[in-house]
Amino acid sequence: MVKTIICSVGTSAAKKLGVKPNELLNWVNEKNSMEDAVECLFSTFRNLVSEDQNLKSSLSAEIHSLVRIGITNEDQIVLLSSNTNDGYCCALAVKKYLEYYWKGIGVLVKKIPGLQVYDAETFRKTGVVEFVKFILKQVESYDASNIILNPTGGYKALVPYTVLLGMLKGIKCDYIFEQSTTLLELPPLPLEFKRGQFEAYKPLFEEIDRESSISLEKWQNSVDYLERKWFDPLVEISSEGVTLSALGFLFWEEIRKPSALVPFLSRNAIADCFDNLALLDNCDPFRFLSRVAGSKLAFSQAEHLNMGNGLRWLKPGNTTDRYLVSIEDWRLLVWRAIREDQEGSKYSNKIKIDDPEADRRSYSPFIRMEFVN
Amino acid sequence: MVKTIICSVGTSAAKKLGVKPNELLNWVNEKNSMEDAVECLFSTFRNLVSEDQNLKSSLSAEIHSLVRIGITNEDQIVLLSSNTNDGYCCALAVKKYLEYYWKGIGVLVKKIPGLQVYDAETFRKTGVVEFVKFILKQVESYDASNIILNPTGGYKALVPYTVLLGMLKGIKCDYIFEQSTTLLELPPLPLEFKRGQFEAYKPLFEEIDRESSISLEKWQNSVDYLERKWFDPLVEISSEGVTLSALGFLFWEEIRKPSALVPFLSRNAIADCFDNLALLDNCDPFRFLSRVAGSKLAFSQAEHLNMGNGLRWLKPGNTTDRYLVSIEDWRLLVWRAIREDQEGSKYSNKIKIDDPEADRRSYSPFIRMEFVN
Repeated sequence: MVKTIICSVGTSAAKKLGVKPNELLNWVNEKNSMEDAVECLFSTFRNLVSEDQNLKSSLSAEIHSLVRIGITNEDQIVLLSSNTNDGYCCALAVKKYLEYYWKGIGVLVKKIPGLQVYDAETFRKTGVVEFVKFILKQVESYDASNIILNPTGGYKALVPYTVLLGMLKGIKCDYIFEQSTTLLELPPLPLEFKRGQFEAYKPLFEEIDRESSISLEKWQNSVDYLERKWFDPLVEISSEGVTLSALGFLFWEEIRKPSALVPFLSRNAIADCFDNLALLDNCDPFRFLSRVAGSKLAFSQAEHLNMGNGLRWLKPGNTTDRYLVSIEDWRLLVWRAIREDQEGSKYSNKIKIDDPEADRRSYSPFIRMEFVN
Repeated sequence: MVKTIICSVGTSAAKKLGVKPNELLNWVNEKNSMEDAVECLFSTFRNLVSEDQNLKSSLSAEIHSLVRIGITNEDQIVLLSSNTNDGYCCALAVKKYLEYYWKGIGVLVKKIPGLQVYDAETFRKTGVVEFVKFILKQVESYDASNIILNPTGGYKALVPYTVLLGMLKGIKCDYIFEQSTTLLELPPLPLEFKRGQFEAYKPLFEEIDRESSISLEKWQNSVDYLERKWFDPLVEISSEGVTLSALGFLFWEEIRKPSALVPFLSRNAIADCFDNLALLDNCDPFRFLSRVAGSKLAFSQAEHLNMGNGLRWLKPGNTTDRYLVSIEDWRLLVWRAIREDQEGSKYSNKIKIDDPEADRRSYSPFIRMEFVN
């Protein structure tokens, strides 16, 4: 399987150079060009093959961890470097090494704006935001299950964000444990964030995302004082206005492009499911709805009739149960759940919702499908 | 407010000693005693007051971050050291420094079994498990809102666990951003883990926790093949058997001692709330139930009648709504929600559940109280 491995990159590629860490930037800047610097740095470890002792003591943290992850010529490696010449030079030298030993491998180096160690505010307001945004864009292009996040190299301060991103997007993190040779794997955990709380402020976040920022005044007028503490981590507040923080972007992304839908049942569908369908021997409406909510493919395979007004009838397979559903942001709304053997083959003519907006009142509330008997 | 700050501790306290990091262990071991080593190490930074330049370049990462967090003589500092003499020596020297400059401050040094960098398996199976367990014990003794987790010092590999623990327990993480002087704050995010999925395996986890491990065979027979991938991060599997991983402990703790309850409504209570109570002008049953589920204090203040069989009537205040509830692990089960002005002052005699176990069938399912209109 072709993997995409996204690595934060530090300066450990320079460890054979014999230049002190705090003098590395000068060393790079004194070279005629970045190309020269990269070539010179690369030459200090080009001939070190990736076997145990070299990995542990001479090669960079990124190369060490990538070898332990088991990369092949067919993989894609994304190296995220700081916005400083020393970090960028190290990332480019690592790229050269990977291309030299794994012919044909794809390596992308991306310098992240604002990612540096001198100014914490810029780090927080730009660096880590751009870091998260860039990874999210990569996640969109590939399937989460083919991606690995690798925070072995680079700033320790990026680790919390990498871990959270992995958890929310269902991506595993693999990293090398300090001086050891063993890979630590942090698979995605069954975590979810409480989106309901966020919901009321959706238009506000939409506006911040669209306009890049809103005024402090608008923020204060829109967000209830008691709720501000809860929101603190999601925004960056300065005299220039309110912008989304790295965590804010992560959350906003999960609202807009949910990794999975969550089923919500109308009052009618609750009665349908518990009092009718669940009594059938070979029918588990809850398992079916969980499955289609969790996978776009399963949803599209189950789609039977598109009513054209946002509502669709789903059909699990060769069974009698049918589900009238719609998608609203991250929610799969289940309006009805019926039996074709009871309603007849023309059930979609019989059970109709002509105007979902107007008819909604008689179906709502839609309650989250999570229960205990 | 008195704070408890829990810090992972590394070896940066030795930076003024002039001994290379990989020779520090030998240096400590060659001293006559640990006491001698600590005294000698402490003397290299005892006279450095905690002002900007010293913090940045001469004092340890732990001292730097604690000063930025703003500790006072009244705080409690918990220093978690590796299970190696060099790490332990550094932690004890940091303790001396803190006690020297903050008279009366409480400093606890705890050496964590298995926490070291030489053997990744021991790190994973013992070190990080003991690290998480020890912090959880501290969290029990204090209120989460008075605790700060500080992963500035110590192994980078501990950061993901510290962050997850903070998120699940609602504890903020504060840390210093590399060479900068600014504190980064990572407040707890509104995350929750999907406990429902875990539920079916509760007895199994109970057994692992009680017996420390179960046989591989028992594990394989008890956990459905398809679910094993999901469970992977929660256990450590070796030839000796199956034990809980650090993440497994975290989750198990949240099942056993939930930070907050989640309200679930019976079918009857759904009708009660939506069709009756919610129609009243001055009554918001959902806000009330969320509030008592989220706070033990609020719950006990609202408790009006204890029926003695696990069921309790709650009363919000000077209003007419009354709620018949019970607690089941992390769930607040709401059996009924009634109006005293309709049922009369003897409502608890009129609406009775004599045998909750036997009568449960006519109330179930209890459905999670999360909905959209």
